[in-house]
Amino acid sequence: MTRKLYALSGADRTRPFSPHVWKTKLALAHKGLEFEVAPVGFTEIPSLEQGTTKIVPLLRDGETLVSDSFNIALYLEEAYPERPTLFGGEGGTAAARFVEGWSQMTLHPAIGRIAIMDIHDRLEPADQAYFRQSREERFGKTLEAVAEAGQADLESFSAKLEPLRHMLKFQPFLGGVGPLFADYIVFGALQWARIVSRHRLLAAGDVVSDWFERCLDLHEGLGRSVRAA
Amino acid sequence: MTRKLYALSGADRTRPFSPHVWKTKLALAHKGLEFEVAPVGFTEIPSLEQGTTKIVPLLRDGETLVSDSFNIALYLEEAYPERPTLFGGEGGTAAARFVEGWSQMTLHPAIGRIAIMDIHDRLEPADQAYFRQSREERFGKTLEAVAEAGQADLESFSAKLEPLRHMLKFQPFLGGVGPLFADYIVFGALQWARIVSRHRLLAAGDVVSDWFERCLDLHEGLGRSVRAA
Repeated sequence: MTRKLYALSGADRTRPFSPHVWKTKLALAHKGLEFEVAPVGFTEIPSLEQGTTKIVPLLRDGETLVSDSFNIALYLEEAYPERPTLFGGEGGTAAARFVEGWSQMTLHPAIGRIAIMDIHDRLEPADQAYFRQSREERFGKTLEAVAEAGQADLESFSAKLEPLRHMLKFQPFLGGVGPLFADYIVFGALQWARIVSRHRLLAAGDVVSDWFERCLDLHEGLGRSVRAA
Repeated sequence: MTRKLYALSGADRTRPFSPHVWKTKLALAHKGLEFEVAPVGFTEIPSLEQGTTKIVPLLRDGETLVSDSFNIALYLEEAYPERPTLFGGEGGTAAARFVEGWSQMTLHPAIGRIAIMDIHDRLEPADQAYFRQSREERFGKTLEAVAEAGQADLESFSAKLEPLRHMLKFQPFLGGVGPLFADYIVFGALQWARIVSRHRLLAAGDVVSDWFERCLDLHEGLGRSVRAA
């Protein structure tokens, strides 16, 4: 096995929650590529592979090192063109950047606030200190105050999913009849919430919930292999 | 000339503003197809082509009639495969539905509220009565009350564009290195605002504004052929 995925992890290494790692795991499974996961804490990242990266996921594939979930997907598409496509052509590759923008600028900040204490509590002590300091600096307030603001996000979260509901009137996946990397981008965000937080962001009967369940089933139930918090 | 585009129009037929018509005009220009525009008011739609449609744009291309801007784009892609692609493959086609969802569920309602009185004032008298009745029923309040709520939309509009700003860090168009139908979808919404309303939704120096200006230049400045309100 030469393929190794360095993946952000909390104290319980059986419950990986990083949204970006989930995107990459599904991308690798989509391509039918085997890999082993090397869990790392926030504070271990700078020392990985001779300090090659500031961010994870980081994939080592033989002699190649690639970090960032989108870059990894682009690399996999180019390196394994004979395997199932992750983008469905150039238009799909380009549009996936917009889907990433939507997910990261709309869903991630809300989930980050809603689940901030859950995330903190699931980290190793050294990472908890790093997380508290870096996030309190970023938000300009205590984690506890951010969590309080997250109450409003919880109420408005469902409305943010309207673009997906519109799309799901026409097709079962962002990728069309089957999933593509665009699905894994959005799945990653909601899987992060599912694993770290006891708040349920998707209601039964919502078409987005149905789509999410379809994603959990993909690749032999890879997403379902970690149960909800 | 056998190609005819029935396009929603206000009283001034030299200033078409329908977002859906703009999408279709750019799609036709992208394919290098000539067409003539037949402007129609809201209340004329039911009598078009023997009552064939409840919505415009409606395209007659020889013997073929297709309504709805997305359906028209799909039709053009299939009927004119040798001309420049509107979607860039199957992944791009599928993802364009999500872009449509984002534009119509996020930008359109805000623009609709911000510009509701402008739109009303630009219609023919018969259409003004239809517009007032149908919109007041939809919103459950007077047009004037909707316009007042639109003040808040004006302040929060720029924040809605964050997904585009993220995408524009990596590429100049939603379509990648060049525009695709996904660009025309979002352009249509902002062009609608540009033509009906004196409120400026895009600030100079914003990368979204730069992208919009690039879109106005496309196809010999087709979008720029109608000046801003």
